[in-house]
This record gives sequence, C-alpha cells and structure tokens, in this order.
Amino acid sequence: MAKDIKRKYPEAKIFGIDTNVSHLEEAMALDLIDNKAGYADLPSADIVIVSIPVNAMLVELPKILDQVNDDCVVFDAGSTKAALCKSLDAHPKRRNFLACHPIAGTEFSGPSAAIENLYLGKTNIICEIEKTAFKLQERALGLFQELGMRIRYMNPVAHDKHIAYVSHLSHISSFMLGKTVIDKERNERDIFDMAGSGFESTVRLAKSSPAMWTPIFEQNKENVVASLDEYIQNLKAFKRLLLNDDYTGIYDEMNNTNKIKEILKGIPLNK
Amino acid sequence: MAKDIKRKYPEAKIFGIDTNVSHLEEAMALDLIDNKAGYADLPSADIVIVSIPVNAMLVELPKILDQVNDDCVVFDAGSTKAALCKSLDAHPKRRNFLACHPIAGTEFSGPSAAIENLYLGKTNIICEIEKTAFKLQERALGLFQELGMRIRYMNPVAHDKHIAYVSHLSHISSFMLGKTVIDKERNERDIFDMAGSGFESTVRLAKSSPAMWTPIFEQNKENVVASLDEYIQNLKAFKRLLLNDDYTGIYDEMNNTNKIKEILKGIPLNK
Repeated sequence: MAKDIKRKYPEAKIFGIDTNVSHLEEAMALDLIDNKAGYADLPSADIVIVSIPVNAMLVELPKILDQVNDDCVVFDAGSTKAALCKSLDAHPKRRNFLACHPIAGTEFSGPSAAIENLYLGKTNIICEIEKTAFKLQERALGLFQELGMRIRYMNPVAHDKHIAYVSHLSHISSFMLGKTVIDKERNERDIFDMAGSGFESTVRLAKSSPAMWTPIFEQNKENVVASLDEYIQNLKAFKRLLLNDDYTGIYDEMNNTNKIKEILKGIPLNK
Repeated sequence: MAKDIKRKYPEAKIFGIDTNVSHLEEAMALDLIDNKAGYADLPSADIVIVSIPVNAMLVELPKILDQVNDDCVVFDAGSTKAALCKSLDAHPKRRNFLACHPIAGTEFSGPSAAIENLYLGKTNIICEIEKTAFKLQERALGLFQELGMRIRYMNPVAHDKHIAYVSHLSHISSFMLGKTVIDKERNERDIFDMAGSGFESTVRLAKSSPAMWTPIFEQNKENVVASLDEYIQNLKAFKRLLLNDDYTGIYDEMNNTNKIKEILKGIPLNK
C-alpha cells in the first residue's frame, strides 16, 4: 500500500514502524518508506495503516489509538474482524478507527514482497463504518478509491463467518495437502519431477507465514472448525463414492462443482 | 502438442481424429490440424498421439495399434499407466507403443485450450521403455526433445502411486473445497466479492473436466483412496489442534510445511 501511496501522492511522507529492524532497513532501501519511526511519532500522523498479525493487533491498536491526534484515521488490514471490533468498542478514540480487510496479497511476506497496484479492482471489506467519524471515513475512502478498491460493508461477525470459507479454509486445505505429499514423498526430487502447475496452484498457500496465520485461526476458531468439518465431510463422501465404485456419483459431484468457473470469473485476479 | 509440432516441423502433415465433430471443425479453424481423418487413415501415419480419457484409452489403443504400420510409433498422454500397460502387454504390436504421461496442461479442455510451448521444461514420464522398438523410441524421444521436455523413466505401478499424491489428490481437494464453499454460500455474489487470488488458486482445478477425471479416479482408485485417507487424517489432526487450542502445534504444522517453497522451486510453471 505504501508503494502505491508513494506513486499516487508524491507529497506524502511515509513513516514506517516495525519491531523487525531488518525489515525497516529493507523498506528504506526499497524506498517504500521515507523514515523509520516509533510510537512517539504517531501524534503527527494523518493516516495510520496497521498491518500486523491479528493477535498483535488486539494489543497494539488500543496503544496506537491512545497516541494519535483527534484528526487522524487509523485503519487495519487484518483477516479477522469480530474480536478486534469488540475489543475497541469502548475505546475513547473508537471514532478514529476504521475496521478494514482489503482482500489482496500473496503468499509472500516482508518489504520485498510489495507489489505495485496490488489493490486495483480488489475488494475492501469495511466493518462498523458508522462507528468511525464521518470526516475520517471520507479520508480513508478517498485513499481506497485512489488505489482502485471496491468497497463492501459488512458486520464483523458475518465477515468472520464468510471469510472462514473463502479464505481461511483454503489455507488449511493447502497446508494439509502440502503436508500429505511431503510426508509421503521422502524423496523430494520425486515430487518436483512429477508435480505440475496443478499441484503448485493447490499448495501455493502452504508457503504462507505461520506467524500471520496461527492467530487468524485462533481468533476465528469457531467458524474455521465449522468450515473444516464440512470440508472433511465432503472429502469422506467423495471417498465413499469411490469405494462404492459409484462413478456416476463422482462425475456428478465434479460436474456440479464446475460452476465454480462462473463464480471465479467475478474474482479480480491481478495480484 | 499439435500446435508446437506445426511450428517446429513445418513439413509435417497433421491428421485429427475425434468423435466430437465440432472439436474437429474447431481444430481445423484454429489451424491445429491439416485434415480431419478416421481410423482408416491410420496405416499411413508415422506418429500417432492418443489423448483421450483413460477409460476410452483401454478400448481404443488396441484398435489403433491394430491399424498402424510396423514403422509407426503410437504414444498416449494419459494420467494413469498401470491398467493401460497391463492391457497392452500381449498385443502383437506392443513394440509400436510408448506409454507416456507428459505432466503439463491446464484446467481447460478442447482445441481452443491449446497453448504454445506448453511442454517446454515439463516432465514426460515414460513407462516400460524397454517394451518399445528401439528405432521408435528414438523417433518419439526426438520429438519430446524438440518440444523441450525432460524425460523420466518409471514403472507404471510406481507412476500411478506417486501421481495419486502430486496430481490426483490435488484435484479432489480442489473440487471438494469448491463444493464446500458453493454449498455454504448460496448467494454467489458473496463468494466472489470476498474471495481473493488465494481462493482462486486452491479451487482452480475444480474447473477441470469430469469426463476426463472420473475414469482417472476409477483406474487409480486404490492409490487415490490411500492418499485421500492420509489427507483426511491430516485435516482431522489440524482440527484437533484447533479444538485443543494448541496454537504452538498449529504453528509447527504450518512451519514444517513451509518447506514446500523449496520443493516448488523445482517445478516448471510456465503453462
């Protein structure tokens, strides 16, 4: 996001705050930020973008809100919304906060993973918009519009339920597929000699950061377990069809799921 | 393959045989083939490439071999090898056949899905090479080399076992993920508004052809069921970790699977 902001708003000064010193140095070297900073610099910020693991979010966001001035808008980019919104509900600076989930990114982390135009055409889910000061909503929405994002409003509980199915479950299916193949194929040469782009596609998310994803699963445990249960039931049903030699049933299962083609046409895929 | 052959061997004459008349017309219109043909034309062929669902393969390959001349090499591109090799073992023209599995393709089917340079850097698994006449091995390998393929030799039973893990299981995990999300999200607008490139990647294979994949699962039933069992066990174990709030365990599971990064680096991904 810093990369796009630099290009779209040449006058903006971007300060980076990170506990990982080498990431800060890297962000400077890549010209993603203008200055290294700390929480003491927060009172001079107009916009604060918080992109950290969702467990750290619960701890840091109240502290960040404590520091910012009354005219600053703070928004997050976390993959869970219910726990965060609940925890900030009584914060005296709640009106300075906008709860966001920009659905964009890759399986890679750190400053070197930054991509230009990542947000173009992507969905940004905003929760509890009415709890943010109107003037600050406007400032954030102006930025999102400049980055080319589509906005969708949702309550935090509904967000967490739906996102468990379309995002969190995909990560588990991918990680466990990777594990199953790695466990079986001790000789790794065999894997990559035989694997094609189909395998690569389905296990791509298994490259994702465990530090980012563990707290997401923790905060969205109930919905994730429910989605995982349904997934396991579907896999078992498929296995039963195979064991019963019910190939008409297997054909039908796949044929009915083929309509995902039409659904996927609606997903903006530029990274 | 026809597309690449046309470019690399401008003197080649390519005949297309298909039960689907509209596909033949499309292949003509796209200049993938020079002529429509039938089995009666087989005796004049130097090379016959058989790319049909693996159940049809068992029925058609013996008939094709019956028709070809003694100096013709016939090879297939099927995703299962054990049943086919076994069924052809006693065929009088077994020496004219080379059992192949080029690990390349996309989720799309039909003549319009043809891609130039699809095979460049991809692996072609060849089974029972010793059962093919030496001169005919040479002709086929010359073609594969021209297309840029890496060759790997394997026995058909080992092929089917490994490919269940790195290819067939990926397709089931993807189809069932698509089904789980479609079943849950009756309002399809919700899916594509919230889904990102991660979801698209993990369900990409759910667009694949049921007519192609049903017979693959049938012929490789035993290995596919075994791989599916292990996958389901891993998903259940992950669910147990979640239910037990064992987030160290969840972190470790993902962290151990992250080494898929290194493994995937070996997979040639140009489509």
